[in-house]
Amino acid sequence: MPAAVAAAASLVLFAPSRSSSSSPRILRRPSLLPLRRANAAPSRPRIPRLVAVRAAVAIEKETPEEERPETFLRAADGHHGAASSSASVRARFERMIREVQDEVCAAIEAADGGGKFKEDVWSRPGGGGGISRVLQDGGVWEKAGVNVSVVYGVMPPEAYRAAKGEAASGNGNSSVKAGPVPFFAAGISSVLHPKNPFAPTLHFNYRYFETDAPKDAPGAPRQWWFGGGTDFTPAYIFEEDVKHFHRVQKETCDKFDPSFYPRFKKWCDDYFFIKHRGERRGLGGIFFDDLNDYDQEMLLAFSTECARSVVRAYVPIIERRKDTPFTEQHKAWQQLRRGRYVEFNLVYDRGTTFGLKTGGRIESILVSLPLTARWEYDHKPEEGSEEWKLLDACINPKEWI
Amino acid sequence: MPAAVAAAASLVLFAPSRSSSSSPRILRRPSLLPLRRANAAPSRPRIPRLVAVRAAVAIEKETPEEERPETFLRAADGHHGAASSSASVRARFERMIREVQDEVCAAIEAADGGGKFKEDVWSRPGGGGGISRVLQDGGVWEKAGVNVSVVYGVMPPEAYRAAKGEAASGNGNSSVKAGPVPFFAAGISSVLHPKNPFAPTLHFNYRYFETDAPKDAPGAPRQWWFGGGTDFTPAYIFEEDVKHFHRVQKETCDKFDPSFYPRFKKWCDDYFFIKHRGERRGLGGIFFDDLNDYDQEMLLAFSTECARSVVRAYVPIIERRKDTPFTEQHKAWQQLRRGRYVEFNLVYDRGTTFGLKTGGRIESILVSLPLTARWEYDHKPEEGSEEWKLLDACINPKEWI
Repeated sequence: MPAAVAAAASLVLFAPSRSSSSSPRILRRPSLLPLRRANAAPSRPRIPRLVAVRAAVAIEKETPEEERPETFLRAADGHHGAASSSASVRARFERMIREVQDEVCAAIEAADGGGKFKEDVWSRPGGGGGISRVLQDGGVWEKAGVNVSVVYGVMPPEAYRAAKGEAASGNGNSSVKAGPVPFFAAGISSVLHPKNPFAPTLHFNYRYFETDAPKDAPGAPRQWWFGGGTDFTPAYIFEEDVKHFHRVQKETCDKFDPSFYPRFKKWCDDYFFIKHRGERRGLGGIFFDDLNDYDQEMLLAFSTECARSVVRAYVPIIERRKDTPFTEQHKAWQQLRRGRYVEFNLVYDRGTTFGLKTGGRIESILVSLPLTARWEYDHKPEEGSEEWKLLDACINPKEWI
Repeated sequence: MPAAVAAAASLVLFAPSRSSSSSPRILRRPSLLPLRRANAAPSRPRIPRLVAVRAAVAIEKETPEEERPETFLRAADGHHGAASSSASVRARFERMIREVQDEVCAAIEAADGGGKFKEDVWSRPGGGGGISRVLQDGGVWEKAGVNVSVVYGVMPPEAYRAAKGEAASGNGNSSVKAGPVPFFAAGISSVLHPKNPFAPTLHFNYRYFETDAPKDAPGAPRQWWFGGGTDFTPAYIFEEDVKHFHRVQKETCDKFDPSFYPRFKKWCDDYFFIKHRGERRGLGGIFFDDLNDYDQEMLLAFSTECARSVVRAYVPIIERRKDTPFTEQHKAWQQLRRGRYVEFNLVYDRGTTFGLKTGGRIESILVSLPLTARWEYDHKPEEGSEEWKLLDACINPKEWI
């Protein structure tokens, strides 16, 4: 039975990792670690044990749909009563990302003052689907994409074993003789590129992944984890803006664990690194991946709180900056930084690179690219200039709070 | 002894391959094949035997130089009297690419009518260096880069063995106990992006690679090969232009072998393929890689003839199109095609991806990117329109002659 992983899964599953390895990694470590691990440094070795998964992935082509369904879940996932806390995590996560999609799109349209999101709904024969919404050439944003997807797939048994921390080669010690293991992945992913060079670009992405308990291996555990983050990319630094943005991230994190903000802030700085430039694409935020060594309900609540804080963290900054007068030079610098955004996304971002290589829904994946970008040969901002200060902060990440 | 490969080698060595594998490949097959192989199909299996080389590559940082030297060759390479046919292939190839750089830059400046190339000369402590020339925001071209580089390095013995067709693991059968093997690589690489949407972008790249005969393995052969190509990327089709461009390629090829044009034309269509789009970045030309199964003098003459035909193939098209009136819509379509150019170069082009990952001279590598580019969500040209015709020709490569 071939592994059938819906293409949009790339948006959901592979966005993150601090590793600079180009090998995608679906599963990495067992879920049965201690529930709570304070101040855990995100520095465990990254062994691309699941490289084999990539070769095994077969992509189903998506089908456009006329209407968005109430849910992309299969009936077995118990989507009825998704609002109640007794509903499955799958159901509650899908409900959350769809509500956040509505909320963010409504806030963007209101602030934009003219542009409207265009919606594309799609499904896959094997189950799942997605809703892509894009606002292009609005009053404030030149390109704003907010996508959700819910994906069902099947992973090879080696991948499942590796997820449990067993050797992929299965050298006789493995007690589990599992067949292909079904998985579920859902996520929201968004990039918002404004026109005004003083108004920052925002990116956020929250996702949940879960395997079924293998049917042919009684007692083998179900695997799950959460990932995500919110980061922003100004072309010019307004300390007031950067502090506001990071303060919202910290406040959101602090509600759950005081170690989260410093840990996820650093993870963000490490992940959005354009290695060949020696600089980050922007001024960071928070980022986490493969989180499962905490209580599942807590992480669901944490992801929800993060996603729900996006509008509060971002829109006030846009309101302050969207009508600031600017020159051609300001615009050209913004466009150069957009070029860096393209470099990061096409060369390093796991969601993008994996999606492109496995035949994901290209338009959904590349909606993250700006409407326009620029590359000048050997451009170096004058030392001490506003452009130089931004570049310096991208090269040497700062503590903003 | 660590392998020291100058960074700019990526521009020279890794530009090409029809394979979509992301593994760079320096050497692939022995040079001692029959000298002449008519109608050989470029469809031999691509085994990335030299993946190990990549891990072994250590990059020396380049040093800016005040003046360009008469040659980047070491004295041992016999650069004196490089014009005579008794000079080494290394010396004659370097002389050729530097002459072509002068010739192309002079022709571009003359046609541009205002813009001047800015020159950066650099060298490496271990030998070799390069000359980068960039014209930006000229009268006709928004960005034009013409670079030459000459690189000395050392490859691990496994790489040399693999080049000779022996198993990299050396399972006892290998008679050669070679140490690290010095190599030489030289090339010219150029991308010319005009402003007018009816004037095409041009890319060409010609390169020569050679190892020393290993000192500690008497009788082990020296390896060498040639690679390169010239291809062009219009946003709109003028049949007259496309036919002229391909006719010059065919005439140049036909002087050497009637099988070259059809073979290298197809190779070009296969190489410049944006897999995730299912389309080529442009309308092709010729492309060849790792050529060594012909007489070395013949291939030197062929590469020279190809490089010398660039001005004749391209500049007359520019003269015809540079002042054509255009609308914002024409410009936006050109910018979308520039976006595709960026996608190909950052995601697939071996020279670029290898260069970025190994710390090459970033500004020389990324000078291939256009000054400006554009990405619209789900853009589809109207069927039958001029934009649609270009896209159709990128999806379904045509025979133009």
